[in-house]
Amino acid sequence: MNIVHGQNMADILPENQSLEGRGTLQRRVLLREALVAAAERTVAREGLAGLRARALAQEVGCAVGAIYNAVTDLDELVLLVNARTLTALERELSTADDAEPVTAAPDAAIARLVRMALAYLDFAVFHTQRWRALFDHRLPAGQDVPNWYRDEQRRLFGYVEELLLELQAQESRVRRALLARSLFSAVHGLVVLGLEEKLQALPLPVLREQIRFVVTAIGRGMATEA
Amino acid sequence: MNIVHGQNMADILPENQSLEGRGTLQRRVLLREALVAAAERTVAREGLAGLRARALAQEVGCAVGAIYNAVTDLDELVLLVNARTLTALERELSTADDAEPVTAAPDAAIARLVRMALAYLDFAVFHTQRWRALFDHRLPAGQDVPNWYRDEQRRLFGYVEELLLELQAQESRVRRALLARSLFSAVHGLVVLGLEEKLQALPLPVLREQIRFVVTAIGRGMATEA
Repeated sequence: MNIVHGQNMADILPENQSLEGRGTLQRRVLLREALVAAAERTVAREGLAGLRARALAQEVGCAVGAIYNAVTDLDELVLLVNARTLTALERELSTADDAEPVTAAPDAAIARLVRMALAYLDFAVFHTQRWRALFDHRLPAGQDVPNWYRDEQRRLFGYVEELLLELQAQESRVRRALLARSLFSAVHGLVVLGLEEKLQALPLPVLREQIRFVVTAIGRGMATEA
Repeated sequence: MNIVHGQNMADILPENQSLEGRGTLQRRVLLREALVAAAERTVAREGLAGLRARALAQEVGCAVGAIYNAVTDLDELVLLVNARTLTALERELSTADDAEPVTAAPDAAIARLVRMALAYLDFAVFHTQRWRALFDHRLPAGQDVPNWYRDEQRRLFGYVEELLLELQAQESRVRRALLARSLFSAVHGLVVLGLEEKLQALPLPVLREQIRFVVTAIGRGMATEA
């Protein structure tokens, strides 16, 4: 029996696939993984603009045309890289949230939100190009974001949502989800424009202070409304 | 006087220029204006990605090489287009602010901030490509944003800053300027991610409600701190 490695393999392997076919498919999956890793390195180094099929093929040692056996197009490759970035971001946020609370509710909940927001800033500072790629990449007109990518995004918002439970317990789940998105968006705006060179990037300690101020104000606004 | 963005004719016209030379210079200024107008139309239609020297030259009826007699490069052209967008945005914000206040301080000041934030959303919705170009455009590494462009940006923040006078009268000018930038950034984040198709764009009434909530919360946070 031919053992197929990796969970995804079994999912995408048609049952009537011949042994020879399986070998081809496995090579395709390995190539796909190599391409995602190479694309991730390129994005981290040069940003989205540095992504070129020819250079990628060279880096993983395949023909340019072979790329399109492993991924549909470069857009799919970018989504795969971005999904990994979302996972890394989620890990950073959850690590930041592990610190012990030092104050009572609602201040403890607000302090957690501030910590998460600052961890988001740190991620953007240390992984600027990969972080930018999350937002700079746009699919061609008329092409929808695949569901698996939407799920990754939802998981990230879900994390903030859970934090809002303490501040907005009386709200419906739908409204909490909306507030989580808004809070994330406000912090994202502060980080994006705070680091923007065209606006003269703010010194990091100043930017941290501003994020703390805005997140605290929003958190208090929520607590007051509650 | 014939005003060119950021500088006027007299400033760029050397004093010892001959009449014939002036004619050349004037043609150059006219070409520059035609190029900015053509670039603006292209950006409004197709976004930054649609900007091509060849197509621009065709549209204004000059040789491709002649473009570089009128502007340093396409980056300068984008900055000139963006400066016009900033002026248009400022006009929208000031129109939105003309409405009569209906409540007392600090609520009146907060209501003004909300109106401005919603006007910003409207601008982004109605002029999406030109608005995106303000943030998507990056200068080549190592190239600084010219001072005349920075002044345009500062004027926009100055507008928000003035609104904060009522809420943060006791703060130093520097700190108020910082808060104006943060408030603008938070609203910008809400608008950017609210309209983002990859995150499933929010229905506009929902987005407006979220902007209202966040701006009010920040405004109240400021008033509480004051």
